[in-house]
Order: sequence, then C-alpha cells, then structure tokens
Amino acid sequence: MNEFDLIEKYFNWKSLNSDMLGVGDDCALISIQSQHQLATSVDTLIEGVHFPKNTSAHDVAHKALAVNLSDLAAMGATPLYFTLALTLPNINESWLKGFSSSLKTLSKKYNIQLVGGDTTKGALSITINVTGVLPKNQALLRSSAKVGDAIFVSNTIGDAALAWQQIQNNKTPSSALLKKFNTPEPQVALGQKLLGVANSCIDVSDGLEQDLSHILNQSSVGARINLTDIPLSDEVSNYIEQTNDWCLPLSGGDDYYVLCFTVPETHIEAVQSIGEELGISLTKIGVITKNKHLEIKGLNKTCTSYQHF
Amino acid sequence: MNEFDLIEKYFNWKSLNSDMLGVGDDCALISIQSQHQLATSVDTLIEGVHFPKNTSAHDVAHKALAVNLSDLAAMGATPLYFTLALTLPNINESWLKGFSSSLKTLSKKYNIQLVGGDTTKGALSITINVTGVLPKNQALLRSSAKVGDAIFVSNTIGDAALAWQQIQNNKTPSSALLKKFNTPEPQVALGQKLLGVANSCIDVSDGLEQDLSHILNQSSVGARINLTDIPLSDEVSNYIEQTNDWCLPLSGGDDYYVLCFTVPETHIEAVQSIGEELGISLTKIGVITKNKHLEIKGLNKTCTSYQHF
Repeated sequence: MNEFDLIEKYFNWKSLNSDMLGVGDDCALISIQSQHQLATSVDTLIEGVHFPKNTSAHDVAHKALAVNLSDLAAMGATPLYFTLALTLPNINESWLKGFSSSLKTLSKKYNIQLVGGDTTKGALSITINVTGVLPKNQALLRSSAKVGDAIFVSNTIGDAALAWQQIQNNKTPSSALLKKFNTPEPQVALGQKLLGVANSCIDVSDGLEQDLSHILNQSSVGARINLTDIPLSDEVSNYIEQTNDWCLPLSGGDDYYVLCFTVPETHIEAVQSIGEELGISLTKIGVITKNKHLEIKGLNKTCTSYQHF
Repeated sequence: MNEFDLIEKYFNWKSLNSDMLGVGDDCALISIQSQHQLATSVDTLIEGVHFPKNTSAHDVAHKALAVNLSDLAAMGATPLYFTLALTLPNINESWLKGFSSSLKTLSKKYNIQLVGGDTTKGALSITINVTGVLPKNQALLRSSAKVGDAIFVSNTIGDAALAWQQIQNNKTPSSALLKKFNTPEPQVALGQKLLGVANSCIDVSDGLEQDLSHILNQSSVGARINLTDIPLSDEVSNYIEQTNDWCLPLSGGDDYYVLCFTVPETHIEAVQSIGEELGISLTKIGVITKNKHLEIKGLNKTCTSYQHF
C-alpha cells in the first residue's frame, strides 16, 4: 500500500462541513465567520514516552486527539478542524484500521474535522494540530487571573499519574484508572461554558502544581491552595493514605480530563450551575493571592514536575 | 534546560502581527479578515529519511519550513502562521541556536509567524503545520485543470534529486545542487500571482510525473508532455546525456522550488509577464488532453516514483 492509498483508505472521511476542502490537495481550505478568531495548538505523542509500547491503536488515536482537544477546551474554543502527521514504522492494516476508527469516533463526538496530514516512515509518533474558533477577545487566557479569584478544578486529580506509575511498576491498573490515562475525555463543553465566567484557565497536562504556576506567572499573581481540598478518586485517596505521596496528584500530569480555572467570587454560583448542568464535579481548591508565590497548605515537601528532557 | 526555558530562549520570537497571540498559552489565537479563507498543510521531515544525518541545523530548519511554504504556494495562499512540533534526541544548544536562527530568518522572509509548538524527546523529526489566507473561492486547486490548458513548470526539474543521488553515492554535490536540495526557495510569490491566471497548480514534491498525475486524476483529464521541453539545469542535462536516465527528473521529487500549473491558452502571455516580473523561468512543457492518460513524448521506459513506505 502506498501513501496515497493509505490516506484514501483510512483518512479521507466524508466532510462534516461543506464549507471546507479537506484531504487531497496541497492544503485544506477553511472559512470562518467574521467576529470570530482561531485558536490553534499542536501536541506530539511518541511511543514509549507518552504512551506505553503495548497501547492499542484505539487508545493511541484517542489520546493523541484528546490531549489536543484539551488545549482547545482550556481556551474555551469550539473545535473546528485538525491535521494529522503520522509517523509509522510500517504499514500494519489492522493497526491503521483501529487507529482510524477511534480517531473518527472521537472527532465526530467533538465535531472536529480532519482536513489534512502527512504520513512518514519512522518510530511511531503522532502529531496533531487542532484549530477551533472563539468569539473575538473572549478566550480563557493564562494571563488574566485576578487577586481574590477562586481556583477550581474539574473532576479528580492524579488518576492518570497513578495508572502510569502502576504500569511502570508492572502492575495492571484498574479499568477506571486506565480509562483516565488512555482515553481521557477533554473538557470541551466545560471550557465553552466558562467563557465570560472564568478569568483564566489551563488544562492539567504537566501536573497541577506546574500548570497552576503557569497561570500565576503569566498573571503576575500568587495562590494559596489546600491539599485537603484537592478532589481525589478513591484509588488515589487510598494511595496517598498508604504512601503520603502528595507529589503524585500535584505533579503527575496527564490529567487531560481536568481544567484548572479561576473565577471572581461573584461567579462561584455560576460555576456550580455549570457543574450541575454538565454533570461534572467542579471543586474549589484555593484562592488567587497578591504575593507571587504558590502556597500549598498541608504539603511539607517539594515535588518535581514532569520534565520533557 | 527544561522545555519551557527551551521555548522561551529559542522560539518565543517577537510577534510580527499584533492581531495574534502566539507562544505561551494553551492555544495561539489568530484573527482573519472576512471574505478570506484559510489554507493549511502539514509536513514532517525525519532525519535519515527526508534529510541526511549530517545536515546542518540551519538547513534542516530551512527545509522543514520551505516544504510547507511550498504547499501554501501551490494554493496561491499568503503565508500567515505556523506551528512547530520538534522532536529532539537531546538538548544541543548549538544545534538549537542554528535551527532557531534559520527558521526565524525564513519566517521573516515570507512574513509567517510561529504561533505555537511542542517539543518532545526522540529521534530528530520536525513537523510544521503552516496556515495561509486566500480570497474565498480563488485557491489554485488540483481538481480544476481544463482540456486545452498549457502545462507550465517553474525553474528547472531534478536538481534536488541529483543532489540526493550523489549524496547517497558518497559524492559531494555542487553548491548549486546542494542549495536546491537543502535550502529550496518556495514559490510563494509565483503562487500568489497565479491566482486568477492558472486553472490548477501543485508543487513538485514527489516527482513531476506523480505530481502532475495528481492534477490529471483529480481533474479527470490527461496530458501530453514533451521530454525535450522539460527545463533542466546544466548539471542535470549532463547527467542525462551520460546516463539517459530521464527518471531522475521525472520521479526524483524534492523540487520544492518548482510549481507545476495549468493555464488556459488565453493566459499564456500573462504567465510570461509573471515570469519576467519575478525573474523566474516559467516553461511550457505540454498540454492538458481529454483522454485520461499521461503521455510523455520521448520516454521509452516506466519510472518509479518515490514511495513513502
């Protein structure tokens, strides 16, 4: 099978949107409404670095798109289109079938269209570039947290990190943990609802401590959070009871089902309503402060966050 | 150096365009004018596959952006922004300095802004996703060649392929050939001038025969070209005189300084004016025909084009 057959067979899906020219020319063509702006982000997943070697094609495809959708969610953007740069060691049709099918399912769920890509030969690696749209000047930036804002996170923290730790220790994580690690659900609907409600937002990809610090640095503020307020699943809770290792949820990363956002006090009720409407738990974990420092009440050690190199 | 320092030091360049939010948030934000549409394309270069192992950081960066700009050129789009997914085996500051500086120089030349990216650890690989803008419904598609159109190519064909062949045979190509192979100049200005003049266009990345065939297939037409009309540099001309290997220019690929386009007879003079204005040689090599077949007059063998797998 050559590159063109591969694209035709696995990635030339029917257009979701008649206003786009997708796969098959030198570029894809996309129109957007006036008064909107584009939000774009790119993330690469490499086998053995971002997912274990025996991960299924289904889960690889899901995660590759989900981590990117999570970036759109963190801006409050509505997904529009994406490109796929896929590096494969060889043509394995069964693998490609699983990958393509899973990617298509997730892209349909979030109404985002594959418009172009490139396939190359090499160690397995997936680079996806997502683009979404937003009403102009409404994006949820990292740089606009205000002193006094309440800090919220969605769902629970640290599940993906615990799964990853167990895999590295040759244990088999529970299906609930594996789901958070392999097939996270990006918080796209939550991000959209937070437009006009939150002052700042980020997704938790490198660990809560490091990601919240990005908001603090870019907003020139500090924060005080309480360890005991951080929402944990029973499994992570048990893990901490046994180990007292708070660094796992604080700096574990890969929480692509978590947004961390800050809202003015006057919007806390709105946040509660959004949580109820979407059926997601949204938990206040602290407050934005004036002194440019992240104080974690209850933590008596320094955690080391994920480093890419 | 961690990922964030790396991005800050090498890739957080001053914005070319105040209407963009670039590196440093979950997504970049971009506004475009109404009545315009976006053209987007992605290409990956892998060390040892798309460029030799000893290629300089300067040339790697240039080529990675140039092959993508070439796709914008082939649509007639004006470059607007790009994202960079960079996979590195380690942090080599001298390499990064050369890479960053070359990328910045080329991006300034074509007025295209780096708005985001991702850095990961692995075998050296560069994925760039470029986006440009176009007046709506004016893009140079592959699917709109018409019977009777004259077929043109810019510059000369096969220089990059000859360089690559010499490198693989442990010969050192001339500096002129190496320049075509390592630091091609994408035909962005030519593509823009062809809007409203050409019926169809493609860049020559996989070899003239295969790329022209994409136009023919997508337009449901055929073509007749003359071998002796194909513009060749003296070096490629000498090579063919010695070897009679016409497959090198026909299926060599990597001609990112070449656009192949078709124009109605009535626009041939306009093409000549564009060539003079830009100082580029534009050569008629054949004509679009009704029967869905590519006839290459003078060729008495079948060439094999580059296959990605």
